[in-house]
Amino acid sequence: MTHAQRLAALRAELARLDVDGFLVPRSDEYLGEYVAPSGERLAWLSGFTGSAGMAVVLAGRAAIFTDGRYTTQVAQQTDAALWERRHLIDEPPHEWLRQHGAGLRVAYDPWVHTEAALARFSGVTLVPLTANPIDAVWADRPAPPAAPARVHAAQFSGREAVAKREDAAAELRRDGHAAAVLADPHSIAWLLNIRGADLANTPLALGFAVLRDDASVQLFMPPAKLPAEVRTHLGNAVDVADRATLPAALGALRGKRVRCDADATPAWFARTLRDAGAEPVVGDDPCRMPRATKNAVEQQGARDAHARDAVAMARFLAWFAREAPGGGLTEISAAEQLLAFRREVALFQGESFPAISGAGPNGAIVHYRASAETNRAIHPNECYLIDSGGQYQDGTTDITRTLWSGPGAAPESLRERYTRVLQGHIALGTARFPKGVAGPHLDALARRPLWDAGLDYDHGTGHGVGSFLSVHEGPAAFSRAAKNVALVAGMILSDEPGFYLPGAYGIRIENLLLVRDATPRADQAKPFLEFETLTLAPYCRALIATALLTAAERAWINAYHARVRDTVAPHCDATTREWLFAETAPC
Amino acid sequence: MTHAQRLAALRAELARLDVDGFLVPRSDEYLGEYVAPSGERLAWLSGFTGSAGMAVVLAGRAAIFTDGRYTTQVAQQTDAALWERRHLIDEPPHEWLRQHGAGLRVAYDPWVHTEAALARFSGVTLVPLTANPIDAVWADRPAPPAAPARVHAAQFSGREAVAKREDAAAELRRDGHAAAVLADPHSIAWLLNIRGADLANTPLALGFAVLRDDASVQLFMPPAKLPAEVRTHLGNAVDVADRATLPAALGALRGKRVRCDADATPAWFARTLRDAGAEPVVGDDPCRMPRATKNAVEQQGARDAHARDAVAMARFLAWFAREAPGGGLTEISAAEQLLAFRREVALFQGESFPAISGAGPNGAIVHYRASAETNRAIHPNECYLIDSGGQYQDGTTDITRTLWSGPGAAPESLRERYTRVLQGHIALGTARFPKGVAGPHLDALARRPLWDAGLDYDHGTGHGVGSFLSVHEGPAAFSRAAKNVALVAGMILSDEPGFYLPGAYGIRIENLLLVRDATPRADQAKPFLEFETLTLAPYCRALIATALLTAAERAWINAYHARVRDTVAPHCDATTREWLFAETAPC
Repeated sequence: MTHAQRLAALRAELARLDVDGFLVPRSDEYLGEYVAPSGERLAWLSGFTGSAGMAVVLAGRAAIFTDGRYTTQVAQQTDAALWERRHLIDEPPHEWLRQHGAGLRVAYDPWVHTEAALARFSGVTLVPLTANPIDAVWADRPAPPAAPARVHAAQFSGREAVAKREDAAAELRRDGHAAAVLADPHSIAWLLNIRGADLANTPLALGFAVLRDDASVQLFMPPAKLPAEVRTHLGNAVDVADRATLPAALGALRGKRVRCDADATPAWFARTLRDAGAEPVVGDDPCRMPRATKNAVEQQGARDAHARDAVAMARFLAWFAREAPGGGLTEISAAEQLLAFRREVALFQGESFPAISGAGPNGAIVHYRASAETNRAIHPNECYLIDSGGQYQDGTTDITRTLWSGPGAAPESLRERYTRVLQGHIALGTARFPKGVAGPHLDALARRPLWDAGLDYDHGTGHGVGSFLSVHEGPAAFSRAAKNVALVAGMILSDEPGFYLPGAYGIRIENLLLVRDATPRADQAKPFLEFETLTLAPYCRALIATALLTAAERAWINAYHARVRDTVAPHCDATTREWLFAETAPC
Repeated sequence: MTHAQRLAALRAELARLDVDGFLVPRSDEYLGEYVAPSGERLAWLSGFTGSAGMAVVLAGRAAIFTDGRYTTQVAQQTDAALWERRHLIDEPPHEWLRQHGAGLRVAYDPWVHTEAALARFSGVTLVPLTANPIDAVWADRPAPPAAPARVHAAQFSGREAVAKREDAAAELRRDGHAAAVLADPHSIAWLLNIRGADLANTPLALGFAVLRDDASVQLFMPPAKLPAEVRTHLGNAVDVADRATLPAALGALRGKRVRCDADATPAWFARTLRDAGAEPVVGDDPCRMPRATKNAVEQQGARDAHARDAVAMARFLAWFAREAPGGGLTEISAAEQLLAFRREVALFQGESFPAISGAGPNGAIVHYRASAETNRAIHPNECYLIDSGGQYQDGTTDITRTLWSGPGAAPESLRERYTRVLQGHIALGTARFPKGVAGPHLDALARRPLWDAGLDYDHGTGHGVGSFLSVHEGPAAFSRAAKNVALVAGMILSDEPGFYLPGAYGIRIENLLLVRDATPRADQAKPFLEFETLTLAPYCRALIATALLTAAERAWINAYHARVRDTVAPHCDATTREWLFAETAPC
């Protein structure tokens, strides 16, 4: 079917359902960053494949809403004759509907919106449906992913699931909550010490769960997804049933208070609880903070995974240094070589996200992904940005390095900007701060050297990272837009300032940092925290303008490079080792 | 009456009113930082004179709640036999009442609480009273202040009141609000270009107002407070009536939506509006942002006031340098000398707050106020902190300098800590940042040099300042606890990091900064802001450890000192000038 036919088919279905319109968010029922192919309804309907957006379909008109990242992409991918293009922030769907749909009955699938998102709509009657009408007309819709779940061994998790369930249940009892809906598969994975393969880059088994205040769990996923050893691992306190049993399970909570996380729970849950006479109450997912604060085993796992990932990275950087000056590389071939090196690393399970591989001006497109159409050669004497990562059973990595292809010297202005980014990256990574300080309070440390020159970057400075879970994990982040969540020992966050000159180049330098207690100093009246750098890869010698560095910054770089050399070189082949020694020589 | 008698009299009154208890906050009906003597009910009842706290009186028990600043003070000032002492944050009144007053009828005066504060109480029945029962038993309660209001001339305000009223009314019309309650006397002063003398350190005429969407204003204060020239200045669009007419005036808003600022409006207003069939809606005081962003005339007034204040400061610092090494000064005599110098400055109207004058270990008490009982000599060879400011018709000043009394050299560790405070103060004052950045995002810049040494200070880094208005003005602040209000050109904020070693000394270095647009740099893709330093006073040469400074920091200090010298010296007597030249010589 063409997109025009798909839209017409949807409209016919809406007419059959006696509603005037329908909301099509990008999300599926897991409300996450990555969506399984079976949930890509917005893309199927409109052609738009960006990672955020919403469409609103009325009988006579339809609009698609995207943010600034996707203005060009949505114009290229959607048919202007079918879709008005609107800016998601400047003219959000609820305002557009207030103007163009006043008084209409607009349907929605309660599985793919939070209650908070729906509460923004006014002037229309929102009509919940029991099935998504797109599914009725999407004839060749893929089946939901059904990869088997697997046990996440104690040597990686560091804590038995029964202890995690007990802690979370105690929190529920303290608040008078009889149960909590766990609508985030990352929380379910962490709580039950299971993993899966339902998404390309995050090892999740997709499903829902209800945790009860006696620490028992009802897990809602197709029982066929759980092999015998996983069932045994889950134990007697965890029941497994198909999602179809959810309404009855929630009905058993009549008269009880049930915690639902406002940001992560489909509206379907609160509605169904109310219909059953239960009382949904807004409260944090009890797993969110515990999984953000890695235990000692997870912390060591992160170190180990990074040390091994560093070997792949060193091999790649050495390979790039040999191959790039002669031309012949492309964005895709380089990213594939790095992936090939990662595949040879022990416990590697796949990429943590599709690599961002941007040469020359493509590096300035912050969310660039090389495709067959856009794939660009990596020319000699230009800037190349590679942002990539791996999922390992003991940890998740995410690293960005910006390279100079050579063989000539890099221009002075590029080196100055690279060095300012590096100085900000170092300023953040070396920060010591008291408890209570949150990510937004440290963001300026990474930006200061750029701000001093009137420069900036239009993305956050860093995000949390999971332990063989999501590469983008809340609740903490180095971002002025993020909530003020105090940094706590055990959190892992990225430190990734950048600078982008459209049409010319992009610079980003990213390490992952582990929060830890700092050794007390004289007259220190309170406990301090600091960061341990997990990532071990050299910075680009050719791009550092050493004259701009302070003595302290130079000393830090040299000490870091020595640590990289000492940790990584012993595990590399001779050629890589030779390159590593040259690249990490004191500057 | 003794405090025991006062408490008994209040309890008798409560019994007469048939209620089981009563809330006694520190606030009066203006909910501000400073309270007129007629509103100091908590102090009258309990003896506690701190600037924040609450008491809860039940028939058989009573508790007084204060925060960490006042633990010692409340223990000294209140009778333990009458008052349980509780921590305002750790065990707030609403939680204490949930435990000890469940089911009781607890009365409150709706004039002295916001609705938001009352909403925290549960488990008790809150009973609003039509009069404050303390007033019934406080026989010699002072009369409310009745100083006459004055015109704030256009040469100082820079904008006619009619234009301000029109702008604010347009905002109300845009939101569909028929009127706004103006419960903050600072907003009323700014809007109508009047000032007063009802409080010791802020030039306010206390009262309330209602701004209507046609830009007319009803002003509720005793008409006797408005001399003829002020009435003329107010014009025909402003009606004046006694506060007793407020209920009728609000009654005229039946059926209308009336904006009330949640943080600044007594609960009495929303209750009375609802009783009258009007609809109170939560919304920002429309004057708050305009008065925070000073216009060109107010900005120049701030510069002028600071240049004149700087002469008083230079005279004081020169005097201190002469007198302190010989001993004989006290905290009070020094503060009085500074005030005497300020009194000789044109347009001086009084102190902007009671000076904080702390010598030796008293400097480490952040909210120290020298009194007859505590007044300490300023010994030779010790640290002395003086935080003071003036109200001038063209601007409000607030400056802190930390001095070494000499004649010997200051200890190395003190100089190192002073220099770290100074480095943080400079780092913040020299920041350039894009629009959208808020105070909390810059706080870490002022703390970083201290954090690097495991040190910190337990207060905010800075607060907004008014234009011949409050020395503590919202909404912006350099404070991690503050809301994220983006910094905007025209705002004035203090930059005041410090370090305090209990039992030894206190260091604080404070300038006021004016936010302004920054000159664009090459490749600058967005507008940047920066700070103009308003305060002009030398730092303490004897306390600067120049070896710790970077070349850029030393250059900045020397340039600042040259600016101080060039601006201030021409207006000083020869002795002061000689000292100024020596103190500002390049380091």
